Amino acid sequence: MRPSSSRSELFGAIEARGGAAEATSDRAWLQAMLDFEAGLARAQAGAGLIPHDDAEAIAAACVAERYDVSEIGAAAAGIGNPAGPLVKALTARVEGPAAGHVHKGATSQDVLDTAAMLVAKRALEPILADLSATAGACAAHALRHRDTPMAGRTLLQQAVPVTFGLKAAGWMTTFDEAAARLRDLRETRLAVQLGGAAGTLASLGDAGPEVLARLAGELGLNEPVLPWHTLRTRVGELAGALGGAAGSIGKAARDVTLMAQTEVAEVRETASGGSSTMPHKQNPVAAVAALACSGQAPGMAATLLAAMIQEHERAAGAWHSEWKPFSDLLLATGSAAAWLRASLEGLEVDAVRMRANLDATGGLLLAERVVGALAPELGRLAAHELVEHAAASSLPFADALERATELPRAEIDRLLDPVEYLGSAGELVDRALAAHRTEVHT
Amino acid sequence: MRPSSSRSELFGAIEARGGAAEATSDRAWLQAMLDFEAGLARAQAGAGLIPHDDAEAIAAACVAERYDVSEIGAAAAGIGNPAGPLVKALTARVEGPAAGHVHKGATSQDVLDTAAMLVAKRALEPILADLSATAGACAAHALRHRDTPMAGRTLLQQAVPVTFGLKAAGWMTTFDEAAARLRDLRETRLAVQLGGAAGTLASLGDAGPEVLARLAGELGLNEPVLPWHTLRTRVGELAGALGGAAGSIGKAARDVTLMAQTEVAEVRETASGGSSTMPHKQNPVAAVAALACSGQAPGMAATLLAAMIQEHERAAGAWHSEWKPFSDLLLATGSAAAWLRASLEGLEVDAVRMRANLDATGGLLLAERVVGALAPELGRLAAHELVEHAAASSLPFADALERATELPRAEIDRLLDPVEYLGSAGELVDRALAAHRTEVHT
Amino acid sequence: MRPSSSRSELFGAIEARGGAAEATSDRAWLQAMLDFEAGLARAQAGAGLIPHDDAEAIAAACVAERYDVSEIGAAAAGIGNPAGPLVKALTARVEGPAAGHVHKGATSQDVLDTAAMLVAKRALEPILADLSATAGACAAHALRHRDTPMAGRTLLQQAVPVTFGLKAAGWMTTFDEAAARLRDLRETRLAVQLGGAAGTLASLGDAGPEVLARLAGELGLNEPVLPWHTLRTRVGELAGALGGAAGSIGKAARDVTLMAQTEVAEVRETASGGSSTMPHKQNPVAAVAALACSGQAPGMAATLLAAMIQEHERAAGAWHSEWKPFSDLLLATGSAAAWLRASLEGLEVDAVRMRANLDATGGLLLAERVVGALAPELGRLAAHELVEHAAASSLPFADALERATELPRAEIDRLLDPVEYLGSAGELVDRALAAHRTEVHT
Amino acid sequence: MRPSSSRSELFGAIEARGGAAEATSDRAWLQAMLDFEAGLARAQAGAGLIPHDDAEAIAAACVAERYDVSEIGAAAAGIGNPAGPLVKALTARVEGPAAGHVHKGATSQDVLDTAAMLVAKRALEPILADLSATAGACAAHALRHRDTPMAGRTLLQQAVPVTFGLKAAGWMTTFDEAAARLRDLRETRLAVQLGGAAGTLASLGDAGPEVLARLAGELGLNEPVLPWHTLRTRVGELAGALGGAAGSIGKAARDVTLMAQTEVAEVRETASGGSSTMPHKQNPVAAVAALACSGQAPGMAATLLAAMIQEHERAAGAWHSEWKPFSDLLLATGSAAAWLRASLEGLEVDAVRMRANLDATGGLLLAERVVGALAPELGRLAAHELVEHAAASSLPFADALERATELPRAEIDRLLDPVEYLGSAGELVDRALAAHRTEVHT
Repeated sequence: MRPSSSRSELFGAIEARGGAAEATSDRAWLQAMLDFEAGLARAQAGAGLIPHDDAEAIAAACVAERYDVSEIGAAAAGIGNPAGPLVKALTARVEGPAAGHVHKGATSQDVLDTAAMLVAKRALEPILADLSATAGACAAHALRHRDTPMAGRTLLQQAVPVTFGLKAAGWMTTFDEAAARLRDLRETRLAVQLGGAAGTLASLGDAGPEVLARLAGELGLNEPVLPWHTLRTRVGELAGALGGAAGSIGKAARDVTLMAQTEVAEVRETASGGSSTMPHKQNPVAAVAALACSGQAPGMAATLLAAMIQEHERAAGAWHSEWKPFSDLLLATGSAAAWLRASLEGLEVDAVRMRANLDATGGLLLAERVVGALAPELGRLAAHELVEHAAASSLPFADALERATELPRAEIDRLLDPVEYLGSAGELVDRALAAHRTEVHT
Repeated sequence: MRPSSSRSELFGAIEARGGAAEATSDRAWLQAMLDFEAGLARAQAGAGLIPHDDAEAIAAACVAERYDVSEIGAAAAGIGNPAGPLVKALTARVEGPAAGHVHKGATSQDVLDTAAMLVAKRALEPILADLSATAGACAAHALRHRDTPMAGRTLLQQAVPVTFGLKAAGWMTTFDEAAARLRDLRETRLAVQLGGAAGTLASLGDAGPEVLARLAGELGLNEPVLPWHTLRTRVGELAGALGGAAGSIGKAARDVTLMAQTEVAEVRETASGGSSTMPHKQNPVAAVAALACSGQAPGMAATLLAAMIQEHERAAGAWHSEWKPFSDLLLATGSAAAWLRASLEGLEVDAVRMRANLDATGGLLLAERVVGALAPELGRLAAHELVEHAAASSLPFADALERATELPRAEIDRLLDPVEYLGSAGELVDRALAAHRTEVHT
Repeated sequence: MRPSSSRSELFGAIEARGGAAEATSDRAWLQAMLDFEAGLARAQAGAGLIPHDDAEAIAAACVAERYDVSEIGAAAAGIGNPAGPLVKALTARVEGPAAGHVHKGATSQDVLDTAAMLVAKRALEPILADLSATAGACAAHALRHRDTPMAGRTLLQQAVPVTFGLKAAGWMTTFDEAAARLRDLRETRLAVQLGGAAGTLASLGDAGPEVLARLAGELGLNEPVLPWHTLRTRVGELAGALGGAAGSIGKAARDVTLMAQTEVAEVRETASGGSSTMPHKQNPVAAVAALACSGQAPGMAATLLAAMIQEHERAAGAWHSEWKPFSDLLLATGSAAAWLRASLEGLEVDAVRMRANLDATGGLLLAERVVGALAPELGRLAAHELVEHAAASSLPFADALERATELPRAEIDRLLDPVEYLGSAGELVDRALAAHRTEVHT
Repeated sequence: MRPSSSRSELFGAIEARGGAAEATSDRAWLQAMLDFEAGLARAQAGAGLIPHDDAEAIAAACVAERYDVSEIGAAAAGIGNPAGPLVKALTARVEGPAAGHVHKGATSQDVLDTAAMLVAKRALEPILADLSATAGACAAHALRHRDTPMAGRTLLQQAVPVTFGLKAAGWMTTFDEAAARLRDLRETRLAVQLGGAAGTLASLGDAGPEVLARLAGELGLNEPVLPWHTLRTRVGELAGALGGAAGSIGKAARDVTLMAQTEVAEVRETASGGSSTMPHKQNPVAAVAALACSGQAPGMAATLLAAMIQEHERAAGAWHSEWKPFSDLLLATGSAAAWLRASLEGLEVDAVRMRANLDATGGLLLAERVVGALAPELGRLAAHELVEHAAASSLPFADALERATELPRAEIDRLLDPVEYLGSAGELVDRALAAHRTEVHT
């Protein structure tokens, strides 16, 4: 097979990072289609429909490198999919009577749908590895910064203190959840497709179900209850799970870009990118690229969900509209994961700056806590008003509180110490890490 | 509470059918928010933070009918969400010191996120009921028409024979799959939200995790490992699962509209709609409405997936952008299910017309079979060409075959009998029904 | 007409701000449908098909307040749209022979499509007013801050100096562009729909085209070349234009939330929202709400674009799937505009803080400029490396440059003065304001 | 430049048909980026900033074939976009002092955004050519079949008679509308990008606006009022217009697949595809492929609209997320147009079968007309009921009417003649063709 990029090389460094690129390439699809044909032949041999030697002769020809993907692709225009031309090319490479058994009982969609499941299964390997490594990087941050205070921010305003450990633990949890769902789909839902022309397996006589079961075994895919040519639950489930994974990646990447802002400067990507014109720039390129990839996922997922509405026994267009977003969504999610892994594995965390940002407002983040301290005596409403007033004053917050309340200064200082107001942050980090370890070990 | 439609009444008959409409109404949201406050008070009482009597006094005020949703909604503009105004209104309805314990330790997002999970849980009841009934209707069709032959159609062209039973069994399988996923989410993923201002539960001192666990118990929701204010996996999972369910519904509805075409006439909705101007029209209104609802799901799901990218400890916009599509997607999926149930429960199936359509091409659908019969002698390629030629001739197919081959007419007629070429259709229906029964019983 | 909220009141304060809420309500749709019927009657009278008195009798009954929207909506389930029930209700309110002329020659979709165009036209009024006011607020900021320096930020890193005037002028330009497109659609593309049962106007005999032209005149809509029941270009164009407007609004709102960050603090919404628990919070609620609304637009636009694929002379579902996103997209865009207007009209700009942020890195933003100054002597590459080195040093940038170059300190200080490196910012602001004035005056 | 497919070759025969494939390839992007650099050099020479000879030396190196796209692409990972590596590679190919003027004053985004506009402009050529040819094919059908009656179908039910000419004229109108919008964007909105690091053109001193204007002239693009790095109106407008064009294409393609159904058989693609297993199949492959391509457009358009929310002076991810859907949407729309052109230019229309389908229900499609004829005497309601009753009877419709009314049989037969009830179909076709000719000639 002549090398083929299968997608843009110009933008590929950003859009196609990590193992999903190769796993969703034309070559990978071609091999998966050939794996179907090899598996089908062996399944039929197992069922006694064709001689074992013929099956092996077919299987021996099922090596992607022996085929010209551009030739096969070009021949697809006439029939509307590349399975037909591949079957022809395969048949031509099988000698003797075995050639007559190629693709027996199968239809083009059987080839492509099963190939899609194999492509997904194989692409999930690097995706899951990158998600796992990313979660691992988060776990390391969470452990190390379990008690590193920083400003919690809501609506992009400093709110109350949190820890960087808690933030990292949160990211970690989402990657473990996303991986768990993807693993579950891989184990229980990726299924072989074999139905023949319209899903009855008619040209296999009575042997259809047996061949179906054997084929699933050959390929390491699940056996479906029914051929699912126009029953696209599996594709929709992958769309949802990949879209969800991409969303979680985007969330963490967004946080990184926000913390990396010049004015915030709490983290820095060590592998961060320079600028061709501005020598001082330290762009968080990996997080930015992760956002670029994850931001494309919802549209791709929506296209796959919309394509579930497929007519009768084979759709007039909706099926064909799946091919590209199916590969693209695996790739976008995988690339986002690979980029975020690079970002988080090399993330420098500046605990000193975190503390400085936390202190920059003179304790305003503890306003809630002061209300809590004053409420028993003043009532919650009056306490809230008093503190709101003090927060808005031109004096430093501690001074304003000293003037407005009867609290001793030492008590005020204690109340305004962020480290004293981290609530259950540490315990929550511990819970999350414990769950992560369980997840990793299952 | 003044009655409120919460959404368009003009289009509601189409867009808001079934129980999901009430379950996602303003009233339902309000009650779910109040359930959070009641549950929170009781959880704190259980943890020894507040007196049990105070908790019950709060809980007693948590009845949606006692609140004016439009007043609360209007007051939401200032603070950016309706939880603040509701807390105020609730506090005003609680007498004595108990009022001081309302909403203690919680933030607005705790109220709304937990309410969203309760709304989802409650809306899933009618959605699952309608999916189950729809699957049941399919099962009845599959059983009854296990052996009813009809034309299988690929790319909207007649291909080979199938059975209506197999088609109905296929629909059924997708509804069981969609329901299984939704049930799984309901049981394992819908989780309470409680984190306080920024997820540390700081204002609850050391008691945060205990209150969290008790609150989950009070509300019958799962306890999350962490507060998940900006970790939106759960919302993304619901988006994917609901989008997938809607896609499956749309597929069956599309098939119904195609089979109901005047020129095909294989099914008829008994509750089908008339036309104001054309007295003869028998529109498959229920299937059309199911398509109208399901067609809106991908965009809503995409909006929810895109909204997963949420900043720091509370998003500046993305969280707020979830509220509408969250309700809308539950409603669109539920309405689609309710409409399809109406369509399929009342679907008249015309087996005679199915057979007539199958026979209309004089056996052309059996061309694949004839190739199979001729191949051993002629070779597959020559057989294919011979049959293609016969199929394109101006003679009836059987006559053309008689002229072109040495097959006796009786053998030709046998080969062209669609009932003889249904492959494993019957067995596949049986498999699907068996799986359905297991699904129903679990 | 019984008051009806048509949508959530609980979330309405955020999701339904500004005039588009009322303009897309059930009442507005009902009146628009009635306007169609009144216009149709008058057009037919003008064409001599029915007596003028009958037309006026019909028109007199076309007052939304006289109808019960929930009753009409409920009756829509049978026929699949609310036009049929409305025609019945209208006919019942017209006395004498005029009743026989109600809805003559029209089909349900004529009513609803024309109503959709009227609803769009009317909703565009407040949307355009809010876009115009928002652009006006930007123009005022641009004029006032034409020369106010601030940090330009790329990939959320400080890059080179810009002015707040240039940023505001940029926002302004997008609102003018969005408004221009929407105005153009309103003037040239919003068109009446009248085709009868399948677009031939058959039941109007030869008078169809004349009635079509007169109806357009009656309603102030364009006359289409053809009935466009399944030719949805117009709907797709609105989807694109509204989606684009929402995107522009979201961009400015995102900038506001970023500049309002505690650590940046360059702007503050004067009407900004407090927090129920944190007395110090100054949330930029208006910008956040603008983001919440605009973030929902792409999914809605995609639903409308996907719904363009409509079968034959009336779609089996796709048309019905437009109703909700059509209203919702007008509303989301309008609400986003109204929120952003509130944000920008009341935006406090802190030029002192802008300057402080600009100076915080000791002139690093001028690194590009220093390279430019050194390049003629050193060559660009060597200059870039020298400056990159200086920027990375632990010394203040000016000191590092003094040590690494032969430039006199005064020259270094001049080079590092951001006000000297604003390029054409001022001139660009002037260009933009000039274009804005032209836009406003056309 | 080593040949590169830029996208899947395996699926390319379906997904990448027509000229848009080459026009959006890596090579095309690379050339467009180089065109920017050449234009920039010449514009600076024109403004007197650099010697003309240097500009020409730079321009001479701006030939895509001289660059290795995979090398440049690979180097993009570090900096986050391929413009930096290209500038380096270009500089290395320019000898002498001219090398020092390469890319002067520009930033990476200037290169890529301008290249995107050039790519769009060039891709629009084949897209517009295919849209125009498709409209032309429709015009030929409309002219030839101006008076060919066929069943009008609403909700996939036969409704009243229409003509095939009217249907084809409708398709034609949408392509003319889509093309007009795309042409308008091409002429008035595709604009050069030049702003420098943050949009102030600072490194060009006072000459920025002049260089901007000259660059626009060099490249044949519009001059924008402002640099538009994060003002993405133009991209959103293209997204909307291409999404709308794709929707119109999908509508016609859907109609073709429906009319080509075995049971309807009113059209046949002469270039229609066979099946590998079913010799009799005549799949409307071109229309199916057009649907496959157009079905992907809404998700891509939504991604581009969502990406409009870009931070400050350069987005941290949203900009980068545009590259792929920008190319993909041009390609999907272009491929859809090319496929539909193939389908419609070779479409065989079977007027005899159209008439047979029209007659198959014994005149039921004229039910509306009979009501109109009976209404003056019986009143509309009674007439409707009488006809509804007759339509539902087991007798042929004409016989049932004869029994139920006093109409003479000849009058009944006249009323049930579809050719007499085509309304203004012919006149509407004439209007549409006249508008088409105007469109074509402008």
